Amino acid sequence: MNILFYNARILTMRDDEDVFCGQIWVTGDSILFVGSDTEADEFAQTKEGRYIEWDRKIDCRGNLLMPGFKNAHTHSAMTLMRSKADDLPLDEWLNNAIFPIEAKMTAEDICHLSKISIMEYLTSGMTAAFEMYLTPYSVAKAFAECGFRCVQTSCVNNFSQSLELLEDYYNKINGIDDYNSFILGLHAEYTCSRELLEDTAKLVHKYKAPFWAHIQETEKETRECMDRYGCTPVELFDSLGLFDFGGGGYHMVWTSDNDRKIMKNRGLYVVTNPGSNTKLASGIAPIAKYLEKGIPVAIGTDGPASNNCLDMFREMFLVTGLAKLKDMNAKSVPATEVLKMATVNGAHAMGLYDCDVLAPGKKADIIMLDMDRPNMQPVNNIVKNIVYSGSKDNVKLTMIGGIIRYENGEFFIGEEPSKIYEEAMRISKRIYA
Amino acid sequence: MNILFYNARILTMRDDEDVFCGQIWVTGDSILFVGSDTEADEFAQTKEGRYIEWDRKIDCRGNLLMPGFKNAHTHSAMTLMRSKADDLPLDEWLNNAIFPIEAKMTAEDICHLSKISIMEYLTSGMTAAFEMYLTPYSVAKAFAECGFRCVQTSCVNNFSQSLELLEDYYNKINGIDDYNSFILGLHAEYTCSRELLEDTAKLVHKYKAPFWAHIQETEKETRECMDRYGCTPVELFDSLGLFDFGGGGYHMVWTSDNDRKIMKNRGLYVVTNPGSNTKLASGIAPIAKYLEKGIPVAIGTDGPASNNCLDMFREMFLVTGLAKLKDMNAKSVPATEVLKMATVNGAHAMGLYDCDVLAPGKKADIIMLDMDRPNMQPVNNIVKNIVYSGSKDNVKLTMIGGIIRYENGEFFIGEEPSKIYEEAMRISKRIYA
Repeated sequence: MNILFYNARILTMRDDEDVFCGQIWVTGDSILFVGSDTEADEFAQTKEGRYIEWDRKIDCRGNLLMPGFKNAHTHSAMTLMRSKADDLPLDEWLNNAIFPIEAKMTAEDICHLSKISIMEYLTSGMTAAFEMYLTPYSVAKAFAECGFRCVQTSCVNNFSQSLELLEDYYNKINGIDDYNSFILGLHAEYTCSRELLEDTAKLVHKYKAPFWAHIQETEKETRECMDRYGCTPVELFDSLGLFDFGGGGYHMVWTSDNDRKIMKNRGLYVVTNPGSNTKLASGIAPIAKYLEKGIPVAIGTDGPASNNCLDMFREMFLVTGLAKLKDMNAKSVPATEVLKMATVNGAHAMGLYDCDVLAPGKKADIIMLDMDRPNMQPVNNIVKNIVYSGSKDNVKLTMIGGIIRYENGEFFIGEEPSKIYEEAMRISKRIYA
Repeated sequence: MNILFYNARILTMRDDEDVFCGQIWVTGDSILFVGSDTEADEFAQTKEGRYIEWDRKIDCRGNLLMPGFKNAHTHSAMTLMRSKADDLPLDEWLNNAIFPIEAKMTAEDICHLSKISIMEYLTSGMTAAFEMYLTPYSVAKAFAECGFRCVQTSCVNNFSQSLELLEDYYNKINGIDDYNSFILGLHAEYTCSRELLEDTAKLVHKYKAPFWAHIQETEKETRECMDRYGCTPVELFDSLGLFDFGGGGYHMVWTSDNDRKIMKNRGLYVVTNPGSNTKLASGIAPIAKYLEKGIPVAIGTDGPASNNCLDMFREMFLVTGLAKLKDMNAKSVPATEVLKMATVNGAHAMGLYDCDVLAPGKKADIIMLDMDRPNMQPVNNIVKNIVYSGSKDNVKLTMIGGIIRYENGEFFIGEEPSKIYEEAMRISKRIYA
């Protein structure tokens, strides 16, 4: 499909560009051209720009095109436990409300339940998810069927999955289709034996690959690791060589100065999950300290059982708002930084270097935000409007790899929403019976 | 107009009722009947229920009807400064970014700019606003023209408005039309002389009326009052007799045990504004302590220059989330309490006793939430879904006094949105020129 977007405001998220008016040309799964009307006229005279037949021309009527948001940490199938596991601290939540339910979920259930999250990502302008769950093949199936970009890592731990499976996932899911890829990782220090950590480090070295895990989400987790090993999870993982090829951690709420020194030296990413950290009372991550040190931060929603909303607008507000509260400084973590976290940094953390900004040759992972909604008016400052007052109500269109998956409230994911909901309710009734 | 809602899930917000399936009958500006299909059949046989000609029958298709949210503190016309006054602490924000701009706003500007906020309230399922701004008559005009319920209080202080004007507003705005009412109040301790406070107390006593103000929003405000008077604003106002007929305070972030004792004794309401308190780094209000003491809490967005989003869903999540963080207790302030704050408590704080719940004789201030959106699925627990994962994306319809003002993304407020936006941009360009 060749799709022309015109009459658009455009925010490419390239460092040197402000919002401008113009066009985006999408051919196949990629962006062919981004620029003003004048530049478009010139491009139409070039060899590359000539003779394009448009399958669709979309009049954007002054609405904003920008790169899709990247949800850099989630567990999509946990829609099953949405509103069934609230008002509990992390350890009680995990041991009493989550693990016993997960034991009853089949791979097919997980494929199906993931689709509800994928739909919600689309309503919030997300175009990729960094996923961790129990059955990576059936998760990959869900994302491929819906046409949504997914980078997975493993949740290997003492009780589920294994190193052999992790290596299998890594080799088989990478390259499986246009939508799925896989990165090495494990659940967390507190669910893995030292042996499992050491063996994972061998795999990291074998593939010279980045490594990811839940890291220092709660004070308890951090303190108990200190008791066990005399050092923090970051220090432990680093000493085992797990970070020798980069990677990062999800949450990272309770890091020390030394942790942050290691993170900086290893080029690690932080994925912050403020909605989840708030609802589970885990704490507020030291985002301003990460920025000061030049440690890149990306943003994730975490799963629908811990947040429970899968909404990048809410997360963006929380990233800056909670930083302001933590530092008691209203200047902390400004909007421009937050928007970069939700787009470019997320893409880079996930290894999606061709999905980060709007530019020729990049994948056409594009969203259109409706500026004609009252929360965007008056249009004094678009970036601040998005971060401080934006909402799902502004998402008019979500395109992934050149295909429109969501437009004006409707989903184009190969299956009827009503069917997906009915099946999810059936699964919920069976498992909670 | 007579409007029948059928095939609905209904949450009346009466204490003893869970969600049930049924119908709501609206005649004129009020609710005539709420109940199951069986009860409706019975009601249709009664004198009152017979011979109703429906102007419209709305098939709710399993979507949820509930009372509209009450925005219990806002400054609607401050859309002008949205995204123009960010990342500043309260005193800098007020003195550098707000007061100089407000000096340039005309009453007509304020009427016009308020309408953008009213539109956003509608998109978030709000049906009433507790408003404080510079020109109450032109504010009342905006709300009456849009058909949105508004309770105003005054922002009288040493620099604007006056006691004479306050008394005028009170006498003239109460009863002016179906949408507007007025409650006694002033801006805040830190902007009013002792004399002004004492004279306001005389007015409170003359009318035996409740009193409202911004109270203890920041630590600085509270500390400076201690320095000036040797007591907190709550203690000062109480000692002057301002609370002799009840009322309450906006924000109330920095209250002491003794403040809360006074608040309980005087039957005061707290209106919490977590979005604004977060963005201005003012702090986290002690909501769990208010609940423990039996002090009723309502929720406000504050104005669009301090939040900047006017969204009850975001505020509800913040009320419970920030309480959990403050108390480091994931059980703090559960969803059922929060939904009551956003509806019933807000109505009572504002004196709107006939807009609190869905019941015969109450005003038809009703919203319909779309349950067929992915963030509401699976439907495990509706109240928790609304508070933890609800969003503007779920608001299908907002009705105020029996008139539908917002439906499926469209506004019915007597003026075209594009006209309202254009005029607001014109005002913004003139004032910021």
